[in-house]
Amino acid sequence: MSDQATLLQHVNDLCDTARPAARALALLSNPERQAVLESIAVAIADNSNSILAANTLDLDAAAENNLTAAMIDRLRLDQARLDAIVADVRSVAGQDDPVGRTLEKRDISDGIALEKITVPIGVIAIIFESRPNVTIDAAVLCLRSGNACILRGGKEAVHSNRAFATAITQGLQQAGVDQHAVQLVQHQERELVPLLLKRDDAIDLVVPRGGEGLIRAVVSCSTIPVIKHDKGICSLYVHTDADIAMAIKLIINAKCQRPGVCNTIENLVIDEAIAEKLLPALEPELLGHNVEIRADKKAATILKTATATTDEDWDTEYLDLIISIKTVADINEAITFTNKHSSAHSDGIITTDQAAAELYLRAVDSSCVYHNASTRYTDGSQFGLGAEVGISTNRLHARGPMGVGELCTYKFVLRGNGQIRG
Amino acid sequence: MSDQATLLQHVNDLCDTARPAARALALLSNPERQAVLESIAVAIADNSNSILAANTLDLDAAAENNLTAAMIDRLRLDQARLDAIVADVRSVAGQDDPVGRTLEKRDISDGIALEKITVPIGVIAIIFESRPNVTIDAAVLCLRSGNACILRGGKEAVHSNRAFATAITQGLQQAGVDQHAVQLVQHQERELVPLLLKRDDAIDLVVPRGGEGLIRAVVSCSTIPVIKHDKGICSLYVHTDADIAMAIKLIINAKCQRPGVCNTIENLVIDEAIAEKLLPALEPELLGHNVEIRADKKAATILKTATATTDEDWDTEYLDLIISIKTVADINEAITFTNKHSSAHSDGIITTDQAAAELYLRAVDSSCVYHNASTRYTDGSQFGLGAEVGISTNRLHARGPMGVGELCTYKFVLRGNGQIRG
Repeated sequence: MSDQATLLQHVNDLCDTARPAARALALLSNPERQAVLESIAVAIADNSNSILAANTLDLDAAAENNLTAAMIDRLRLDQARLDAIVADVRSVAGQDDPVGRTLEKRDISDGIALEKITVPIGVIAIIFESRPNVTIDAAVLCLRSGNACILRGGKEAVHSNRAFATAITQGLQQAGVDQHAVQLVQHQERELVPLLLKRDDAIDLVVPRGGEGLIRAVVSCSTIPVIKHDKGICSLYVHTDADIAMAIKLIINAKCQRPGVCNTIENLVIDEAIAEKLLPALEPELLGHNVEIRADKKAATILKTATATTDEDWDTEYLDLIISIKTVADINEAITFTNKHSSAHSDGIITTDQAAAELYLRAVDSSCVYHNASTRYTDGSQFGLGAEVGISTNRLHARGPMGVGELCTYKFVLRGNGQIRG
Repeated sequence: MSDQATLLQHVNDLCDTARPAARALALLSNPERQAVLESIAVAIADNSNSILAANTLDLDAAAENNLTAAMIDRLRLDQARLDAIVADVRSVAGQDDPVGRTLEKRDISDGIALEKITVPIGVIAIIFESRPNVTIDAAVLCLRSGNACILRGGKEAVHSNRAFATAITQGLQQAGVDQHAVQLVQHQERELVPLLLKRDDAIDLVVPRGGEGLIRAVVSCSTIPVIKHDKGICSLYVHTDADIAMAIKLIINAKCQRPGVCNTIENLVIDEAIAEKLLPALEPELLGHNVEIRADKKAATILKTATATTDEDWDTEYLDLIISIKTVADINEAITFTNKHSSAHSDGIITTDQAAAELYLRAVDSSCVYHNASTRYTDGSQFGLGAEVGISTNRLHARGPMGVGELCTYKFVLRGNGQIRG
């Protein structure tokens, strides 16, 4: 256990060294930043044995602490996973440069040339749980976009994270870059986090990645801007004029293709007028995919196997093969229900009526709204944004899938020849 | 004095009614939102007498409380100022619609059509001091961009703010819009603010406008994202290869044209090599404009009238006719000094050397960086952004001058024909 003074000193050290490293990174050219990533890819490959040995220590501790099989799987590294990580690093290096893009260009008052260009955000803190590959992902996405980062991983992966950090430091040194460009927090005490999150003078953005508890803790004590990657309570709405076969196909995909992720639906909203046609055909498909069906009263009278929903169901992210079915009188009730219960992540309408679709797309206040497609597409790589930092549930700066482009901000560059304001 | 339960109830009422109003506003067309503003313009004109009468109460209280002449002037309304406010409302109505703009459009996986479009942020809280016209400015800019707002003005302007709010409510009703689209906080107790700033479930953005104390108080207790409009410590740097006549012209404009505003310079950075040529010519010009000169040792040996700077000077926003002069060995020292002491608002280089200019523009980490032009241009209307919400000193979402465009966020709209993810 480290005492408060030690933790504070560590936070000060992290903060004091991050800004100069960020300023130096911001001046690197695109090929220079690409070379840094290549150097890190090589360092990870070179350090495979020590990384896997460190991971074994974490796995042993996980077994001792009776972590669930799912958690242990998320923690586990092997040579194949390491190879994939190295390939991912090179893939990010190959993505388009997000820095220095001209967003706007025009002459303003008195002939001054204004240019609005993308620049790195600066220093980014990323606080995450268990999965050790996030250490590499986060570092690499920050470096690609010219940002320094401070990484704080979970204690379950402490050995793996440190081994990855050693490889990153090696890669930075090989590339001749300030090793403080990527720093791993060295103390696992919870008390450190609030100290870090008050340093809005030194850190420009904090990204919490993990469960609701972590995210709430960060939001409630941070004076640094936070981009949350919060839960996904998503839904599909089957409008009266839906194609039944398409509806069933989309519902099954959106619920069953990968039930444990955030863009999977939890709630199914259906017009009363189509319930008697849809539900008898849908039920055996859901049961065939081992989905537990919960339903409101009207839907339950048509279904054979549904249990009754409680009020809590509509606000619950199951991350599991469970679906809750809500019947509505019309599209307006569907929109109101969705805006009330969805987490503003991904929601969709299934209909052949274009006017109904456009109303829904406009009125549903989520970061991603779909017409006749599965919500499972909400994803940085599916959207063509490249490797994903995560899916923001914030409304500002970055909304929905975040790529390296969203790790940039902008500045105004103004070139004149002696203009003064009159 | 209202007790805590009353304040909490008021916050709950504000929050419960703001979201439905915001959702309704987001569905209005551009002409409908323009009609709302016209309706408010008419209501302000119709209510001139009662607004001016209310303002007299505030002015009487200000005199009793011995407010400074500058504060009383900021508080004062007269028919000419009211006419200007009405004209401003109509001018905002005439600006380009910031809502529904297509930022990106492309086909993604399996032929789904992705569109990234601008949408209102939702519910915006604006917390401001003394100037009553902010009530109208803020309401109008929010409505133009389809946002509901909760306004909390200072107690000095309480009667004027209420009179304006009455006119706004009348305008909203006339236009057939939910009157909760613009709500004025009705209690002046400080204890209300922290209650409001914990409501990140109901409010999407808070914009504090005022002094450093207000901004710090908001940042330290808000769980809602904040866009600060913080102080401006700006600078000009005179490089060795500067045109002396241009340098003097730009320095005088940037310091003297309007010393009380945030884009005015406080610090002047000059290369040692040009100091002996520049300073003897600059000094009489500064003195002729009644500027008090403070200088570091090297500059002071050349100047006749300068007093010595202290460490505090470099970090002080004078908002007055005072300038601090710092000599540096070269451009690198100038960049380091500027990044350390400027508030990342507006900074400029004066030089005929293009390479030096480009290095400075790239390395100085401020929202607006200038080459051979006065920093006084940092302004929404000068930048062509229309009426200004303020000048953000945040790095995320909005940086530098904020127009109605920065009161929007975006969403992804995806249109398919039955696509499922494989």
